[in-house]
Amino acid sequence: MKGEPTIGDAFGELVRDALAVATGIGPRPLVGGRLPRPVIEVIERDDGLINGAPAAHYLAEPSQWQPYDHRAVDRVHGETLDIGVGGGRIALRLQDRGVPVTGLDTSTGALAVCRKRGVRDLVHGTVDEHARDGRRYDTFLLLGNNLGLLEGRERAPAFLAALAAMARPGAQVIAHGTNPYGTSDPVHTSYHEANRARGRFGGQLRLRIRYRELSTPWFDYLVCTPDELAELVHGTRWRLVDVDTADAPYYLATLRLQG
Amino acid sequence: MKGEPTIGDAFGELVRDALAVATGIGPRPLVGGRLPRPVIEVIERDDGLINGAPAAHYLAEPSQWQPYDHRAVDRVHGETLDIGVGGGRIALRLQDRGVPVTGLDTSTGALAVCRKRGVRDLVHGTVDEHARDGRRYDTFLLLGNNLGLLEGRERAPAFLAALAAMARPGAQVIAHGTNPYGTSDPVHTSYHEANRARGRFGGQLRLRIRYRELSTPWFDYLVCTPDELAELVHGTRWRLVDVDTADAPYYLATLRLQG
Repeated sequence: MKGEPTIGDAFGELVRDALAVATGIGPRPLVGGRLPRPVIEVIERDDGLINGAPAAHYLAEPSQWQPYDHRAVDRVHGETLDIGVGGGRIALRLQDRGVPVTGLDTSTGALAVCRKRGVRDLVHGTVDEHARDGRRYDTFLLLGNNLGLLEGRERAPAFLAALAAMARPGAQVIAHGTNPYGTSDPVHTSYHEANRARGRFGGQLRLRIRYRELSTPWFDYLVCTPDELAELVHGTRWRLVDVDTADAPYYLATLRLQG
Repeated sequence: MKGEPTIGDAFGELVRDALAVATGIGPRPLVGGRLPRPVIEVIERDDGLINGAPAAHYLAEPSQWQPYDHRAVDRVHGETLDIGVGGGRIALRLQDRGVPVTGLDTSTGALAVCRKRGVRDLVHGTVDEHARDGRRYDTFLLLGNNLGLLEGRERAPAFLAALAAMARPGAQVIAHGTNPYGTSDPVHTSYHEANRARGRFGGQLRLRIRYRELSTPWFDYLVCTPDELAELVHGTRWRLVDVDTADAPYYLATLRLQG
């Protein structure tokens, strides 16, 4: 057979199962039909690299967060769009603080999980689609490494333009990124080189998420340095005004709307 | 690119990394080059199904074992061959009890982990290869679901003949299996049906293990009922003398050498 997986909402399914395991409510994966098993997100890179990681972090309580997530939330002000809301952990925290927050995701399964967990304002779609809805925001969040949604040189200008179209004067983007070049592992360094040889950023990953019989389509996800980010922001309506590297190789980048 | 993984000792690499994570010694996978990450074994089935599971169980201490593993160890007597010794957890326990035990595995990485953990007698190879070494055993262990190594109707007779060739009079096989047919999940039931339509056992899985950039070749791994096992044993020098189903759907099958 050597069948390929079915294209579908792999991310939504795994977040839904992670919630079922965390709450003990609803159908959930069992070993031998009996023992609970942790939900594992499988991420495949287009060079054949594969990694599994427990999915529970998508639902993590603030006490389990990394320090940069807390600092990101502390920077939020005004109407906020949580882009790639996932399991809703950030949006729920903001709601608790009284921040008016909207959760955006392309995964219907993830949005269903957010709704079940109490996130009140949810939108299905991409930033381009949502830009046509006429909503305006003061803060855009790209947390959980979602700076990656900029993808690379082709996609980033349109992505940032969609945010600018939804931005109130003085609006900011708070984005969580990772510097990918600290490794000497040849599996990664040779991937970076092959990418650059094709005019891509070294850390412009081509990935798909797999869960059970499902896979997302292949998509680009950008892991870049602050300098590479500055290159992408240059010439847009945004300006890179701050980079918090206290938890390197992770960082929080802040963009501010110009003019 | 859409590269395929490199064929190699994926299992050995993941057990080695699991040991490094457990002991904090040696190079080990880190998130962002900094935070330890659990080692996840990714198992891909040839219909596109994929599952990730933490690899730590290969190194589990007896206090963390499932009850059937303890009952299996209690059935051991005499010179023992631990087939698919993996991370060595069973062999180490037997050594502690003074049982003369040999660990057999096709993974050189797994054998290196066993050696490092203190397993004294280790052999690299398949049961067919080891049968030419002239060693004789009273007990053969197929634990950790390794009844699966019987593969199916083509492989089982030769596998069981290799064990018989190494068997002392009165020798036994203690094998851990799982009844695969308790599920109503269509992902599994349709796979079982497709298998049967091709003359295979329903639970005759075609799998490969993936870890980082490596994959094993595709291999058959049999998940079968005690009745299906009885069919495979029929006509060999072995007789199915006991099935312990106290932890259904898991079971321990005991085969005894005839005559």
